[in-house]
Amino acid sequence: MPDTTQKNDEKKKSGKPGKVVRGERYEIRFSGSGGHGVILAAVMMSEAAGRNPKLNVIQTQSYGPEARGGSSKADVVISKETIYYPKAMKLEMLLAFTQEACDKYYTDLKPNGLLVVDSNMVTKLPIKNSFGFSFIRIAREQVGHPMVANVIALGAMAALTGLVSRDDLKEVIKTRAPRGTEEKNLKAVKIGFDLGLKALKEKIG
Amino acid sequence: MPDTTQKNDEKKKSGKPGKVVRGERYEIRFSGSGGHGVILAAVMMSEAAGRNPKLNVIQTQSYGPEARGGSSKADVVISKETIYYPKAMKLEMLLAFTQEACDKYYTDLKPNGLLVVDSNMVTKLPIKNSFGFSFIRIAREQVGHPMVANVIALGAMAALTGLVSRDDLKEVIKTRAPRGTEEKNLKAVKIGFDLGLKALKEKIG
Repeated sequence: MPDTTQKNDEKKKSGKPGKVVRGERYEIRFSGSGGHGVILAAVMMSEAAGRNPKLNVIQTQSYGPEARGGSSKADVVISKETIYYPKAMKLEMLLAFTQEACDKYYTDLKPNGLLVVDSNMVTKLPIKNSFGFSFIRIAREQVGHPMVANVIALGAMAALTGLVSRDDLKEVIKTRAPRGTEEKNLKAVKIGFDLGLKALKEKIG
Repeated sequence: MPDTTQKNDEKKKSGKPGKVVRGERYEIRFSGSGGHGVILAAVMMSEAAGRNPKLNVIQTQSYGPEARGGSSKADVVISKETIYYPKAMKLEMLLAFTQEACDKYYTDLKPNGLLVVDSNMVTKLPIKNSFGFSFIRIAREQVGHPMVANVIALGAMAALTGLVSRDDLKEVIKTRAPRGTEEKNLKAVKIGFDLGLKALKEKIG
């Protein structure tokens, strides 16, 4: 259940959640701070998207002075075409686990790009086109482990993009989740995917 | 102990292991097949290199038709300058866990770039400038777990580049290793770093 949902009725050329890529770049950023597991979420999203034979995917992270600060980010670029330039430039979708990451990166969203936040961590929403979910709280309460918040968010983001199937996501979780945590992560991704679908349905109306 | 070491006495402008970056790009690829943990090794290498305030680092992986096949790869680009183009183009160093990955990627090495292989998996060396280590066997025999072969390889690669300190590597292992496996991974990275240093010393003479 999204805690915060703003409708945006304007017809969008792009940036509309659930839309498939039409030969264009589709850029997604996962951001938070060190412990949020944003790289693993981005790797899983990329691998799941890459299982679709029509899609090319590049996943990137930066380190060093360019990337300093408390925020951590991992980018995914998806396209039906060969991706020559792998850096994300105009985001279709941004996930932010912290207010700092949100404030730092929301300006990289396309006009009408979608902001997805942990609604307990990010309380000041800088743009209207956003969804808030209590990822960390849900991870603790429904899976018994706050560490799987990244995989709940991954599920929600995957559903919101419409680019990644539930089955591909499950296959990737089975191979990428740390040994012994597969079941918890499968539960987490299911919860997230369902949250994303529900939010999308409410938004589209 | 390197099982295979070929000396290359030619003076190299670049591609020389142990040399620091001089404002140029330093590109490293980790390759193998699905289960070898090459992405995690590349993420750890990048994060450790990024702890050096003088270095910028971008870490990338590709999925989809472009990247199809049984091989898995993860690239790291390191530079003292801002990295505008994050795709690896001319590798300074290539790690290959399988013959297939070796055969597929060695042509991406710079002239005099260094090939590092698991010597039990890669038996046909396509170039002379190479080191072979029994990463998987050592992981099993000395750490009790073949899964840490990636971290032994990471340690060796880090030592061979000369770009990443042992301490930075240890700090990253502590935060990135799957929970409960920190000690095994710290042991693995130490074994690898020592192997790399020893091989480098023998090579430089």
